[in-house]
Amino acid sequence: VAAGDVARLEQLMEPLHAADIADLLEQIDSDDREALVRLWPQGIDGDVLSELDESIREEVVELLPQDVLAEAVRDLDSDDVVDLVEDLEEPQQERILQALEDSDRVAVQQSLTYPEYSAGRLMQREVVALPEHWTVGEAIDYLRSASELPDQFYHIILVDPRWHPVGQVGLGRLLASPRATPLKDIAEEDFRVIRVFDEEADVAYLFNQYHLISAPVVDDSGRLVGVITIDDAMTVLDEEAEEDILRLAGVGEEGGLSGRLIDTVRDRAVWLFVNLLTAILASMVINQFADTIDQLVALAVLMPIVASMGGNAGTQTMTVAVRAIATRDLTPRNAMRMIWREITVGTANGMLFGVLMALVAGFWFGIPMLSVVIAVAMLFTLVAAACGGILIPLLLDRFGIDPALASGPFVTTVTDVVGFFAFLGLASSVLL
Amino acid sequence: VAAGDVARLEQLMEPLHAADIADLLEQIDSDDREALVRLWPQGIDGDVLSELDESIREEVVELLPQDVLAEAVRDLDSDDVVDLVEDLEEPQQERILQALEDSDRVAVQQSLTYPEYSAGRLMQREVVALPEHWTVGEAIDYLRSASELPDQFYHIILVDPRWHPVGQVGLGRLLASPRATPLKDIAEEDFRVIRVFDEEADVAYLFNQYHLISAPVVDDSGRLVGVITIDDAMTVLDEEAEEDILRLAGVGEEGGLSGRLIDTVRDRAVWLFVNLLTAILASMVINQFADTIDQLVALAVLMPIVASMGGNAGTQTMTVAVRAIATRDLTPRNAMRMIWREITVGTANGMLFGVLMALVAGFWFGIPMLSVVIAVAMLFTLVAAACGGILIPLLLDRFGIDPALASGPFVTTVTDVVGFFAFLGLASSVLL
Repeated sequence: VAAGDVARLEQLMEPLHAADIADLLEQIDSDDREALVRLWPQGIDGDVLSELDESIREEVVELLPQDVLAEAVRDLDSDDVVDLVEDLEEPQQERILQALEDSDRVAVQQSLTYPEYSAGRLMQREVVALPEHWTVGEAIDYLRSASELPDQFYHIILVDPRWHPVGQVGLGRLLASPRATPLKDIAEEDFRVIRVFDEEADVAYLFNQYHLISAPVVDDSGRLVGVITIDDAMTVLDEEAEEDILRLAGVGEEGGLSGRLIDTVRDRAVWLFVNLLTAILASMVINQFADTIDQLVALAVLMPIVASMGGNAGTQTMTVAVRAIATRDLTPRNAMRMIWREITVGTANGMLFGVLMALVAGFWFGIPMLSVVIAVAMLFTLVAAACGGILIPLLLDRFGIDPALASGPFVTTVTDVVGFFAFLGLASSVLL
Repeated sequence: VAAGDVARLEQLMEPLHAADIADLLEQIDSDDREALVRLWPQGIDGDVLSELDESIREEVVELLPQDVLAEAVRDLDSDDVVDLVEDLEEPQQERILQALEDSDRVAVQQSLTYPEYSAGRLMQREVVALPEHWTVGEAIDYLRSASELPDQFYHIILVDPRWHPVGQVGLGRLLASPRATPLKDIAEEDFRVIRVFDEEADVAYLFNQYHLISAPVVDDSGRLVGVITIDDAMTVLDEEAEEDILRLAGVGEEGGLSGRLIDTVRDRAVWLFVNLLTAILASMVINQFADTIDQLVALAVLMPIVASMGGNAGTQTMTVAVRAIATRDLTPRNAMRMIWREITVGTANGMLFGVLMALVAGFWFGIPMLSVVIAVAMLFTLVAAACGGILIPLLLDRFGIDPALASGPFVTTVTDVVGFFAFLGLASSVLL
């Protein structure tokens, strides 16, 4: 396709949704991407740019001629332009801002003054706000005559004379009510206001918890400055979950499939390096017992089992804890109960797998005391895994460190060290 | 609070949102929960029941008197009742169905005939559908006179005489247009129809990919039977991501914080058992080289490092692959490129950490050949981790098995076996 036939390309791409075009651009390699964009720049409109992954967006924006870029960004709502611009380098950012009309440019620049990951960055400035004392009829007449309305909106925000939001009316409700009804009478009971400096994660939580569709955003003085809609919240929620998954596995944000190769290598290497340090620490524990192993090589054969079981059990507890903290199901209020719960689970499984491993070791090596040692070590290790798995994320969270990012290495260290120490230590004092 | 003071309780709970009451019920323990529900049954309305976690909902429904339950479910839209009823045991399900009015009961029972996790279960049957040839004015007049409209709706669905959806009109657009405008002229360009047997995961993907707010659902003959809104899609998306996170860590759905303790123990034990089998397999590899270890105990000290690095690198690749499959960024079309990419990353990091470990081992034990052995073993292991990490999820997905659930043990087995085999095998042939 990228062999030069523009007409054919256009015919193929035209019916595609912007999101699909963006996906296509992400999936082909860098050379094909460049060829495609050069061949068919007018296909890359604002929506496609919005959908593109950050790592690729920069590359595509650079390739676009100024006039196409200008055309592309003019149709977008202000929140989408902000989203587009915030991750670009200075010169590209400048190019896009210049393409905007004056009033839009001011709006975008103002949004960019809010901190990253704040509600201010997420909101769109196009709002439909009406005085609280208006009636349904007045509202409908106003909407019909208004020259510029947001692309999509779901609520009318009611404001007092100081432009403070006091309620909101769903469009369905508005349409179903007689013209003479005061807007105030059909305002939704459940009405939540977001402050412009609120964190986007908190905003997403609000939307998810209270099933909001859209919510007004106010500045420090309580004045309405914008609105956040559910699709923005959905994106944030999606990104947060994705981030947690990748971080738990020791993969950073660059770890996607379309980022630059060297970034991926470096990003993964950082994590593997941390893991190397904890593994060396565990090896030093083993080294303490080198003489013991020298006398009974069965210990070397069985010891990875203890460590592996501990690591897995620790990961289970840690993952549940990290997610429960993220979704706010685990709070300081119920932390004690949850810690006990995990320790109980760890003890139960520790006993179960202790007995199992004792049987396996018995059949394998036929040394009764070795079975006893591995059973006790297994119990110790799984209880340690439970404690570490829940206490470490809770502590990290208390100190303001993202538990998804940092828990893994600590938990592994705890389970490895306890596992090897319990198994080899017991063996050296009991067996020899 | 649960000491019996109803008035005080009511005063405290009344201002809370249903979702918060549900969270509260989930966070207190079983006895307190029972006391609270008995004391204040009228506080548990339909919305609270909808928000409750499945594991607790059954318990709460059992405690509620029939009249309170009837009151609670009558206000809900049909999709919420279906959601409420589908996970309950037979007798409780019966109680709720009896509480409904005849027409609602039929609707709910019909929805329950669709398979679990299908669009049919997710949709609400309350739709606003109008003939395609109507005008804006006719639509507004109709809505104003209609006796029963859904709680919230965002689009009017246009249908042809056979009740097939042919387009939809956003309410904002409807309000902004003159009365004489034909609805057809303001229909949205981007219009997607969902079939009633589509899987809910695919529905959620559609909403997320194309930023839909609501979409009509049709049966096999193309007739409109319901509508799915973004909040339902958001819930599904949220659950899918959560499920992937937990499954990757070997924790099933019962693994939450409020499920029954015995379920959690069993659930985790299943996974640990699978891990035990792979760990024993790895131990059998070590056992093959027992003589080698006996002659050089440094091998026993270093070998967990090789396995640990392999396991971590494998988890990194596997997590990226599993998520990319889930979000459809990794498809058969670009699989080859991604496999090469991962192998390149694995090779690069394999060389880096091979050299690092050679240095560490050199300083520690001062045996040059041991350094060479661990370097080569590290390279082999990290390349194997990359291959296993991406090929195993792809293969599982090809065979229709959820890669998030089953990849872990396979990947660990590959990295452990390759790691131990490479390290100890090389050592036995080179060092002794």
